[in-house]
Amino acid sequence: MLEMLKKFTVNDGFFGRFRKLVTDVVIPYQEKALRDEIEGAVPSYAIKNFELAAEWQETGHCSGEHHGYVFQDSDLAKWIEAAAYSLIASPDPALEQRVDEVIDLIGRAQFPDGYLNTYFTIKAPKERWTNLQEAHELYCAGHMMEAAVAYAAATGKQKLMEIMMRMKDNIYQHFITEKAPGYPGHPEIELALLKMYEATGDAQCLELAEHFINVRGVDPDYYVKEAASRPGKVWGMDPKDRAYAQNDVPVRAFLVAEGHAVRAVYLYTAMAELARRTEDRALKDACQRVWRNITQKQMYVTGGIGSSAQGEAFSVDYNLPNDIAYSETCAAIGLVFFARRMAELFHTGEYGDIMEQALYNTVLAGMQLDGRRFFYVNPLEVVPGVAGVVPANRDVLPVRPKWYGCACCPPNVARTLTSLACYAWEEGEDMVWSHLFVGGTLDLRDTKGVTIDVQTNYPLKGKVVYTMHPVEETASFTLAVRIPAWCEGVTLRRSGQKIYSRGMGTPVGDPIGDGFAFIEGPFREGDTVELSMDLKPRRIFANTHVAADSGCVAFAYGPLIYCAEGVDNHNEILSVRASRSLDPVMVPITEGPLQGLLRMDIPGYRLESDDGLYSARRPRAVPYTVRAIPYFAWANRGENEMRVWLPEL
Amino acid sequence: MLEMLKKFTVNDGFFGRFRKLVTDVVIPYQEKALRDEIEGAVPSYAIKNFELAAEWQETGHCSGEHHGYVFQDSDLAKWIEAAAYSLIASPDPALEQRVDEVIDLIGRAQFPDGYLNTYFTIKAPKERWTNLQEAHELYCAGHMMEAAVAYAAATGKQKLMEIMMRMKDNIYQHFITEKAPGYPGHPEIELALLKMYEATGDAQCLELAEHFINVRGVDPDYYVKEAASRPGKVWGMDPKDRAYAQNDVPVRAFLVAEGHAVRAVYLYTAMAELARRTEDRALKDACQRVWRNITQKQMYVTGGIGSSAQGEAFSVDYNLPNDIAYSETCAAIGLVFFARRMAELFHTGEYGDIMEQALYNTVLAGMQLDGRRFFYVNPLEVVPGVAGVVPANRDVLPVRPKWYGCACCPPNVARTLTSLACYAWEEGEDMVWSHLFVGGTLDLRDTKGVTIDVQTNYPLKGKVVYTMHPVEETASFTLAVRIPAWCEGVTLRRSGQKIYSRGMGTPVGDPIGDGFAFIEGPFREGDTVELSMDLKPRRIFANTHVAADSGCVAFAYGPLIYCAEGVDNHNEILSVRASRSLDPVMVPITEGPLQGLLRMDIPGYRLESDDGLYSARRPRAVPYTVRAIPYFAWANRGENEMRVWLPEL
Repeated sequence: MLEMLKKFTVNDGFFGRFRKLVTDVVIPYQEKALRDEIEGAVPSYAIKNFELAAEWQETGHCSGEHHGYVFQDSDLAKWIEAAAYSLIASPDPALEQRVDEVIDLIGRAQFPDGYLNTYFTIKAPKERWTNLQEAHELYCAGHMMEAAVAYAAATGKQKLMEIMMRMKDNIYQHFITEKAPGYPGHPEIELALLKMYEATGDAQCLELAEHFINVRGVDPDYYVKEAASRPGKVWGMDPKDRAYAQNDVPVRAFLVAEGHAVRAVYLYTAMAELARRTEDRALKDACQRVWRNITQKQMYVTGGIGSSAQGEAFSVDYNLPNDIAYSETCAAIGLVFFARRMAELFHTGEYGDIMEQALYNTVLAGMQLDGRRFFYVNPLEVVPGVAGVVPANRDVLPVRPKWYGCACCPPNVARTLTSLACYAWEEGEDMVWSHLFVGGTLDLRDTKGVTIDVQTNYPLKGKVVYTMHPVEETASFTLAVRIPAWCEGVTLRRSGQKIYSRGMGTPVGDPIGDGFAFIEGPFREGDTVELSMDLKPRRIFANTHVAADSGCVAFAYGPLIYCAEGVDNHNEILSVRASRSLDPVMVPITEGPLQGLLRMDIPGYRLESDDGLYSARRPRAVPYTVRAIPYFAWANRGENEMRVWLPEL
Repeated sequence: MLEMLKKFTVNDGFFGRFRKLVTDVVIPYQEKALRDEIEGAVPSYAIKNFELAAEWQETGHCSGEHHGYVFQDSDLAKWIEAAAYSLIASPDPALEQRVDEVIDLIGRAQFPDGYLNTYFTIKAPKERWTNLQEAHELYCAGHMMEAAVAYAAATGKQKLMEIMMRMKDNIYQHFITEKAPGYPGHPEIELALLKMYEATGDAQCLELAEHFINVRGVDPDYYVKEAASRPGKVWGMDPKDRAYAQNDVPVRAFLVAEGHAVRAVYLYTAMAELARRTEDRALKDACQRVWRNITQKQMYVTGGIGSSAQGEAFSVDYNLPNDIAYSETCAAIGLVFFARRMAELFHTGEYGDIMEQALYNTVLAGMQLDGRRFFYVNPLEVVPGVAGVVPANRDVLPVRPKWYGCACCPPNVARTLTSLACYAWEEGEDMVWSHLFVGGTLDLRDTKGVTIDVQTNYPLKGKVVYTMHPVEETASFTLAVRIPAWCEGVTLRRSGQKIYSRGMGTPVGDPIGDGFAFIEGPFREGDTVELSMDLKPRRIFANTHVAADSGCVAFAYGPLIYCAEGVDNHNEILSVRASRSLDPVMVPITEGPLQGLLRMDIPGYRLESDDGLYSARRPRAVPYTVRAIPYFAWANRGENEMRVWLPEL
């Protein structure tokens, strides 16, 4: 998966916009935040903490105190990771030098025995490994390992990798050699260790990842015992809330997705990756069970997961309230991670479909179109004066804040949007899998003797053209192109000749199995594979068990879920209704921050109700065209009403 | 108002059932609860606390500790009040003797200076009046004053009245004579003092009530100062949350209903009563503003108020979620109190309409049909497995519990249902106002020289017949009969002759003004006034600003709001839809706990959706008759789905 970072060069009109934003705006902004240089913002202290930890290593004492969350180190790690990905596409020697300096600082903060964590250096030096449940020690290590892998991939520089290999050695010594009990409170290191293994082949990385996955929940009382004996506490979490902590049963016994949503999907991501590497049937089955539970019972139509604000957690099946949705940006990102590993594990199209659903909707919604504000919580209905105000709706904000005290989401968006290559593509022995439709150039000369040029304006248009440029006369491999399940009208042409068609004129070819079309080589210079998807507006209906969506319809165009905002609809979203029969039309947006996107004009009605609270008179329905925009672009024009699910009339 | 307690004898088929339950089941059950004699229930300690306080008065020390809430005394007070009302209709010498003994005990617990409160006797004897915000001292006094008034009215016995007059003297001494600052954290004593004034004419009662109303919010920092100086705390409430405590502004400046809902309506009740007695224009205006805000912006269709579980509070305009509704039973009762005073203050029918809406729906829903279980929270949508389980829905229970640690609601229902006479009737100088349609006999021989016999099967049938029995040959007064605004078809006959009709054949008579028909005397023996209301099922539509009710309709029959329950609908409430055009029909229920009530069969559909979470296929609509029952009778047949607002199709 990681090899795609340098093999695929994105030159996509749609994602190019976001990539550029991350490179030009988010990464510099976040660097300032980490250096406490943003006036008026709460200082991060993330770099300052490393400076203090380095001082401690070098002098034996600290001139200051640790500040910020117990997981503050991870903010710096995610920034390094995003910067690394950005450097691949946009070389920037000055940035690279600053990252090098930060890595030097990190190295100086490391203990001689390899241990690295500023909180446990400055604040609680005697409490290493005593509070796995709350203290995010392994989580911070995991993020720094991901950063190390990314920076090595981007620059070839190994220093951070070496630092984190020493930290891995320290962890290995403690948990494997010395047989210390326990497992991470916030899963993350498992998937990071598997990335380290992928990048280096170091067997201990695989062994350690497998260890943390295997021991989890085998002793479901581990946190209870830990809480009874540990010297300090961070938040005072309930150690007996085992389902919340995903340690009620061993992971292979998981039946449904439960607990803190981000922790869950980070763990499932590692489980799926490990299952693939070890061909572990029980682990595969557990992954499929939680996958099905998430996507068939607990996922918003926007690809958001974790509906409960309390605990940032999964709820129960079908409990998907729109106005008090939590749907954390990081959880949708974690679902993309999980989906990508599942795609590689099972090779059916549904994983790419869900990856796309989460990415194009909730993940993108996490960032304002100018890259300067971010959502942590992604509701599907917002009423100003209620959202962020009424206690039950307090976590749901109607506009993106500039930053967060707990700033996990913004850099998570940044690192995801700069590493799209990993999610778009997968390479097998004789296969090339196209999971996402992103324009760019895929350089597979080393492995398949071919360069594939991808031209597309997706998701604004439905055409994707893959043009082959073999190094030799021909290149022999099979191109597997995902055919989205949501797409009714599909045509596939090979060098102009229709080889498959459904829903667009006379059907051609056999039904496509497992969500992929397989186009076998050999390919010659200029050979094309052209996928045409009919992106006409489509209606989505929720299962009737979803109480919040009763009587409602959602609209989509391609992978993009649409929503109606007050600013386009006389601030009367609550009174608009969608026609049950008339079809929407797409209209280009020619001005404002949404310029270049497509508006959806949905035939419908505007209700005129009496002034009173209740009335015997049915509200008068006046024909009205509801103007909808892509969900990811909501809240870019000030505070206003928003709804994804529209009542039908 | 209180004089009606003995003047009106209820013999109503509908309310008779509830009255009997309260007398036969609730009052004895609650007595056992107060005496800690219910096995398996949390002990109340309410009587034990008084025994300990009496011991303290008599010996100077206590052999035990105070238990229960700081307002535990009020549970005993409300029980005495309910028992008193019950004794009027159902004399019970044994019960009366036990109440007398309890009153003796209360008297023994009183300080020589008149002060009475077990918490501040046993637990915090040096902290009298130091924590008005939290400690419910004046609240408990108010409830015991209401009990004293009720018991004197019922039995003529004055002992409790004398006890509470001494307590009033003590309060007067502290707040008036000694000019102590402050006002009650939980309003209640204001309305109680006005009842004391009504019962006794004691001017200090009126003065003290007026004082507490007038000083409230004049110093909006009173609680802040108190919190800074008080020796102890009860809950640690935020003294700066002034709108929550209804002390942000003086009461005459109230614009909207805010804060804790029960506190608010108890305060508004006293404000309306005081405004009537003092003809205070500014106070009247404030009452009308909060009334309009409640009934036109913040009230559920069931008459429930206070939608926010956090703080048991009013929310913002139109924020009326159904599945996380709080809608406390006590708040609906308080709305009945407020409405009754507003009716007497302004004499328009809307107040009786709302009184009826709250009483027949949320207040009655507060009690199981067998009188043995009670709701504190009254949702308008329940999904088992979500209600009471998912954190956001934790306060919403799908079945009534047996009792509560904080048991304010059950005795509140009991005292309300046993004092219906006060709410049904009002007597003016030349007027008799019929606010509610309750069968029984109104003995006005002393004042109007007439007995009025009321025959009705309301709300099952729409006919109400008032038959006059003058003492002399004629009786001269005007009978004002409320004509519900929701009723489209009304006919009024005087001794058989149609004097007014609307919506039922040819209109007769002038439009009725202000929601009342006025039938002037003189009346002779056997003269009748017959009101016929067409109780056909009716649809109710919410204002489009109510997000939770978008696309939905509610159904009512007379004053009864209906709901659909799973037990009558194959446990498929979320998939049923109401027809937009076909009309429901009423069907008698002939068996089970709802026997004698009317079911509403609503033509509609059952949707069959795909198994998946989302689908492009519109769920298939199969014709289906939705069976609905009166809202107050829900959750009498086990845990199951319930919905008041049904999506239309």
